[in-house]
Amino acid sequence: MARPASLSGFPEWLPAQRIVEQHVLDTLRRTFELWGLSSIETRAVEPLEQLLSKGEVEKEVYLLRRLHDDPADAGDERGGRQLALHFDLTVPLARYVLENAGRLQFPFRRYQIQKVWRGERPQEGRFREFTQADVDVIGDGELPFHYEVELPLVMADALTALRPIGLPSFTIRVNNRKVAEGFYRGLGLQDVGGVLRTVDKLDKIGPERVAELLIAENGADARQAGMCLALAEIRSPDVSFVQRVRGLGVEHPLLDEGLMELARVVEAAGEHVPGVLVADLRIARGLDYYTGTVYETVLDEHPDLGSICSGGRYDQLAGDERNVYPGVGLSIGVTRLVSALVGLGLSRATRSVPTCVLVALPDEKRRSECDLIARALRERGIPVEVSPSGAKYGRQIRYADRRGIPFVWFPGDDGDDEVRDIRSGEQVPADAAGWEPPDEDRCPRVVPG
Amino acid sequence: MARPASLSGFPEWLPAQRIVEQHVLDTLRRTFELWGLSSIETRAVEPLEQLLSKGEVEKEVYLLRRLHDDPADAGDERGGRQLALHFDLTVPLARYVLENAGRLQFPFRRYQIQKVWRGERPQEGRFREFTQADVDVIGDGELPFHYEVELPLVMADALTALRPIGLPSFTIRVNNRKVAEGFYRGLGLQDVGGVLRTVDKLDKIGPERVAELLIAENGADARQAGMCLALAEIRSPDVSFVQRVRGLGVEHPLLDEGLMELARVVEAAGEHVPGVLVADLRIARGLDYYTGTVYETVLDEHPDLGSICSGGRYDQLAGDERNVYPGVGLSIGVTRLVSALVGLGLSRATRSVPTCVLVALPDEKRRSECDLIARALRERGIPVEVSPSGAKYGRQIRYADRRGIPFVWFPGDDGDDEVRDIRSGEQVPADAAGWEPPDEDRCPRVVPG
Repeated sequence: MARPASLSGFPEWLPAQRIVEQHVLDTLRRTFELWGLSSIETRAVEPLEQLLSKGEVEKEVYLLRRLHDDPADAGDERGGRQLALHFDLTVPLARYVLENAGRLQFPFRRYQIQKVWRGERPQEGRFREFTQADVDVIGDGELPFHYEVELPLVMADALTALRPIGLPSFTIRVNNRKVAEGFYRGLGLQDVGGVLRTVDKLDKIGPERVAELLIAENGADARQAGMCLALAEIRSPDVSFVQRVRGLGVEHPLLDEGLMELARVVEAAGEHVPGVLVADLRIARGLDYYTGTVYETVLDEHPDLGSICSGGRYDQLAGDERNVYPGVGLSIGVTRLVSALVGLGLSRATRSVPTCVLVALPDEKRRSECDLIARALRERGIPVEVSPSGAKYGRQIRYADRRGIPFVWFPGDDGDDEVRDIRSGEQVPADAAGWEPPDEDRCPRVVPG
Repeated sequence: MARPASLSGFPEWLPAQRIVEQHVLDTLRRTFELWGLSSIETRAVEPLEQLLSKGEVEKEVYLLRRLHDDPADAGDERGGRQLALHFDLTVPLARYVLENAGRLQFPFRRYQIQKVWRGERPQEGRFREFTQADVDVIGDGELPFHYEVELPLVMADALTALRPIGLPSFTIRVNNRKVAEGFYRGLGLQDVGGVLRTVDKLDKIGPERVAELLIAENGADARQAGMCLALAEIRSPDVSFVQRVRGLGVEHPLLDEGLMELARVVEAAGEHVPGVLVADLRIARGLDYYTGTVYETVLDEHPDLGSICSGGRYDQLAGDERNVYPGVGLSIGVTRLVSALVGLGLSRATRSVPTCVLVALPDEKRRSECDLIARALRERGIPVEVSPSGAKYGRQIRYADRRGIPFVWFPGDDGDDEVRDIRSGEQVPADAAGWEPPDEDRCPRVVPG
């Protein structure tokens, strides 16, 4: 096999980096379960027509074909359905809910942590395989507003739980489709989707150009365009945004409803996770398909990384001829987050292997004895390996040192074993049936870089 | 979206079944880490030519194509390389080791738990997507024999740790390529690979037909064929197989080496995990590509499920123009195992959701208060959700009951809260800042079915 090259867009971690990723995944899972969300996984593939059924024909998906299929048969045998790798966890969730509706309890509270794939052009340097962590609550027919308050708190807790390992401060920015739509309608603008898409370009093209486009393409006059820009400038970490919107003098029942909802989200966040959530009326991403609250999350000092956690309310996450399933959900881009933690040196593992103790081998003939010492330690939950060879002790200690293994165990001749902390050099008598490492050394920890 | 149908070969679990799967995955991971194995994950795709480089042209793999690629361009842009989903974790490990050789410590001890895909014809009812859990130790240039003793003990520990949740008794059957090859060569047979492949058919076609084939196709005479069958009948849970092989009167240095190695594996298993490993000289699966010890594992009462954990020693797991990397490894078919546990009713979760406490809602107006009660419990590691609505308490209790949530919390008017165990009906005063559930109720447990 020729020495292989990495594939751009398909990140892989070395063992020490993987420990950081596992810590992140464990932390997310623990937080999600504390909020009573059930884990599910869905298959990696969906029929292509389902992946594209939301009109996402622009998505770059990977189609599958069996190697030994007749090349003339582009699809799967099952009714000729073309299979493709899922590009997010929302479409699969919708399908899973429809498929299992009779066997699920609603509201269905689930989290899902899986890889997804996007058939990006490799030269763009984007991820083509990455892990997402999604939380959603799905209703059967209806779903109360209060889940739009609850779910960003789940994610705020999850991200806050990563602060001790080096995740920098973050802000969840929240807006509400009803605020924007009600405001535009109250202004007399009808092309709500068009206005939203134009306002979404603010960061890219600036306010003057946005105003021009609103006038040229979305049926606004200069006053209306100015009001749209004024709305987008409003941002507050508390409910003061309500008065500022009211101050613009626009009236509409949908605006009232949206302001009340957005205020409730901001209030609850103030009670539960002070300082991490702001109302930001500039957020327009996804407002064309979300129907209520929308969320995005940036690392305050690394806005260039984009949103690490986004989502919103869909009135129709899934539906069939009989029923509709509204949902609220957010998704963390785990790979993007871990790339930042590892790539920016924000987090690191205290060692590269799980091993806490290396049992040194005085002589290859004594391997069975050393294996039993290792077993005795392992039975009390201490990760152990036995030295690969009966080399000189100096070489065995270097084996441990290179991997960051903190302790080396020296079997004695008559059970008078000793254990050395190779960081301090301190060596003490020890009994495999009773010795315990310090808590902080038992497993590798993840700490700020 | 029309009501979707499941795809055969792509299993998905309901939330309560997923809890069983997660428990299995957690148990495997914990065991592997106790043995000092590092976690890695590799990308889901490999270039097709690497997947097939071991001559596995018969494998049914899934090829990938980007939806918006020019159809004339069958491959990936990167030098036109065709990507395909990996069908096991061994080929990706070999590639990972070669790619990262300079950044890994050898012997490289790793475990890897990931999904793999096989483009089976769907009508065969086989898994097309499933999870494998692999453990391997890879050497740089050389790898001592003792890892062939160690790695089956890791898997024996992992599977033993699943016995309390209902995994039935299992047996790891072990053979050694050197025993078979040395025996055949000592007999004067030269077509070792052919003999191995014929003997591998014993279970399917029976001893008479095997003897006929050995004579007709593998150059054996009647005596040699009889000796091959006699060897294949030897099976022992201790080292007594050595004397029985010796009793057949065949001599060869490779046979001596193989018997010594196999005896060492059996002895060590007797010391560490008595009763789970046997020497079984009939095992020939994979002996044509493994070079030392080989392993397979069956559930004693469910032999029809086939092997749930197999592996062996490769002298050349990976290699390039400069170096060779031998390895020893075993792989658990997690999906097959979980299917058995769930499908045969051997294991079940004590409830279908993580939630331990449902905070009842006296009135929608008191939701903020209930959310803060939930937070106080959650901060002490208790999984909690707040009732979806302020319906009558009877209905809220039914919500908990349907999900198996054991406790319902009733907020009082002046902080005089109470909590009810809805299984016993016992209701007691409680304080969210101090109340603890019994340990066994905190999280869903997995128990025998």
